[in-house]
Amino acid sequence: MKKIKVGILGCGTVGGGVYTLLTKNRSVIAGREGLDFEVVQIADVRAPKGIPAKIRSKDAYAVINNPDIEIIVETIGGVKPALDFVLAAFKAGKSVVTANKELIAKEGERLFAAAAASGVSFLFEASVGGSIPIIAALRNNLAANQIKEIYGIVNGTTNYILTKMTEEKMEFSAALKKAQELGFAEANPTADVDGYDAAYKAAILARVALGAEINFKEVSFEGISKISLSDIRYADEIGGVIKLLAVVKNSSAGIEIGVRPTIVSKKHPLASVSNEFNAIFVNSDAAGEQMYYGRGAGALPTASAIAADLIEIARSSGEPIGLPEPKIFKRLDSNESMGRYYFHLKVADKFGVLSEIAGILADQKVSIDAVLQKETSNNVATLIIITHEANEKNIAAALKQIGDLSVVKSVKNVLRVGL
Amino acid sequence: MKKIKVGILGCGTVGGGVYTLLTKNRSVIAGREGLDFEVVQIADVRAPKGIPAKIRSKDAYAVINNPDIEIIVETIGGVKPALDFVLAAFKAGKSVVTANKELIAKEGERLFAAAAASGVSFLFEASVGGSIPIIAALRNNLAANQIKEIYGIVNGTTNYILTKMTEEKMEFSAALKKAQELGFAEANPTADVDGYDAAYKAAILARVALGAEINFKEVSFEGISKISLSDIRYADEIGGVIKLLAVVKNSSAGIEIGVRPTIVSKKHPLASVSNEFNAIFVNSDAAGEQMYYGRGAGALPTASAIAADLIEIARSSGEPIGLPEPKIFKRLDSNESMGRYYFHLKVADKFGVLSEIAGILADQKVSIDAVLQKETSNNVATLIIITHEANEKNIAAALKQIGDLSVVKSVKNVLRVGL
Repeated sequence: MKKIKVGILGCGTVGGGVYTLLTKNRSVIAGREGLDFEVVQIADVRAPKGIPAKIRSKDAYAVINNPDIEIIVETIGGVKPALDFVLAAFKAGKSVVTANKELIAKEGERLFAAAAASGVSFLFEASVGGSIPIIAALRNNLAANQIKEIYGIVNGTTNYILTKMTEEKMEFSAALKKAQELGFAEANPTADVDGYDAAYKAAILARVALGAEINFKEVSFEGISKISLSDIRYADEIGGVIKLLAVVKNSSAGIEIGVRPTIVSKKHPLASVSNEFNAIFVNSDAAGEQMYYGRGAGALPTASAIAADLIEIARSSGEPIGLPEPKIFKRLDSNESMGRYYFHLKVADKFGVLSEIAGILADQKVSIDAVLQKETSNNVATLIIITHEANEKNIAAALKQIGDLSVVKSVKNVLRVGL
Repeated sequence: MKKIKVGILGCGTVGGGVYTLLTKNRSVIAGREGLDFEVVQIADVRAPKGIPAKIRSKDAYAVINNPDIEIIVETIGGVKPALDFVLAAFKAGKSVVTANKELIAKEGERLFAAAAASGVSFLFEASVGGSIPIIAALRNNLAANQIKEIYGIVNGTTNYILTKMTEEKMEFSAALKKAQELGFAEANPTADVDGYDAAYKAAILARVALGAEINFKEVSFEGISKISLSDIRYADEIGGVIKLLAVVKNSSAGIEIGVRPTIVSKKHPLASVSNEFNAIFVNSDAAGEQMYYGRGAGALPTASAIAADLIEIARSSGEPIGLPEPKIFKRLDSNESMGRYYFHLKVADKFGVLSEIAGILADQKVSIDAVLQKETSNNVATLIIITHEANEKNIAAALKQIGDLSVVKSVKNVLRVGL
């Protein structure tokens, strides 16, 4: 029986979950793997409940430099002070497992290089998709594949809100409030609803799937706060549901990494991923279409992924596990990024409006797939336009001109349609 | 760059796919993994197309005993002669990767023991779910979990047939014919439609998830040939779709391993798995509910899983990879196996019939959830009964008595309801 002593930095929901899981299933793991994990020290500035006093510390460096400890689990979250702690752990010759997506999205390359320089392992399965082994799938199971595209529902908060809007006809603000009451959304929901969290994960997915150097500033992202109940209803009418997708696309013209609310066909497997669940859809040259579905957050689901990383490191008998060197990919120009679009416009209810708009679209080589003229009130009509495939640059140019028309009161929303 | 020379036994769809993938993506794998795989010899009794003559052989033992070859890929299928070849490869000190579910379900324990005795690796990711990394998920990513239950759509042929019946209102025989035309079903479809193939996979899943010793004779299974279009319609009326599920359940009372057609709620993620796709739903104590979805067959999807096994062996630098020793689990008695049931009965269209049937069910402590009285023709009525949870033994006793009633013309079908 190989004994592995573990230290945990940060004892919130996730850190506490790791302690609980490793304690509860210690004999299960030992019986199956011949690995005996023991959490010997936990650092937290608070005095967390349910943790024996003798293994608690307020000093992260006491844990990092504890000579008994072989692997450090970082579950503090955020860049500061987690970054300093992880770098110190590498320097002390300790392997690190983290769930910290923001840290990897912002400081990933520095950390991968530092881990390699110290000859230690650095794993982060829990940083994307919680319990879902998507990092392992991309790193191991799909290792013989060229990944073509990834579409992920990787933020449980926004998926919960969109599900409530879709299934219970709640407005965004009511759905957000409900998510906050249930603990699925933070008091300050910005990181989730504005797409930051999903964008961190998109950057990580691109790094693991393609080796694309992480540069968070280049990830374009958008959240869900502009989505109204009417958008949800119009999406339904055209056979779709709105999902916030993290997107990684790889083609010979370049790569796209971003986050965007998208109208997904009800027939697509991602459409049935509801509530706080996450799922990542991957299309690769040999395996074809796959989807990985599960809980994207929560104490034990996240701890399950962290424990899998710990087991992988313990099994590797000293051979450090990390990522290959990053590559610089050409980013796709907006000129080359193709997609179908949904426009939700408020227009004057009079003759000739559609003709003006259609003229602008034609000038920009954007062809129209469908037009739905909806409710009119106070002489303002709602116009929904679905385009065929068009490039992003032309769409942006057309939207600018459409927005400037005197007959157009407002551009309420613009969404992508289809994957 | 580490060079790994591979030999392939059997060059049908899957073996040819492995050759194609390793050749096509050789530089991709080399760039990412630092592993250079080369297929140096392929044995097949035929002379397969697309394989250079200089690496073809008609003699499996020439490949097995080729001193250049480090890893053998077995893609012959079936027990004979694959078993002898795999055992010979182990004796020759070669690791083996196989996609052969029948071989593992029938001779797995013998093979695992022989591989361990020879100190070689033996992996079989492609044997369940084709491209889907379910074996890796259970073996690695969920290693810190106690698996509670697995429900898998693991046979693409039957899922395709059931999808056609559901979506296009085809009868079983027409859907089977269409599956045969498209190459999703064999000329002799028994292994698929009668549940053998899914049963092999259920046994393998139980071995990997729980360590349950493989004993294929103890796997109870049932196919889909008794399912009629009317069953599909009645399932739809109660909010479900019929799926053929491989089932592994683990509780303190014992384990269940089997295959059964089941009415799955339309809200369950498995319900939306259509056509030839496979998906495995896993519920475990920490990770919670997960689903793994993808292509369950085909040349390149299967080759993707085989290549992942090859990469894992090549990375392990000689440390053999295998399964822990098996455990003997108590099988759940029919007395303890609980479930909800659907009965499809043809009964005489007269007073008192339902009362007689309901009386028998009450005597057997089976309570009724819903009764649907359907079409009547020639004085024969169709009666659909959905039960609450009841144990299998009582259901069987009740069905025997119901079938013996003079007013009951026939018991057309009995299905499980819910997971």
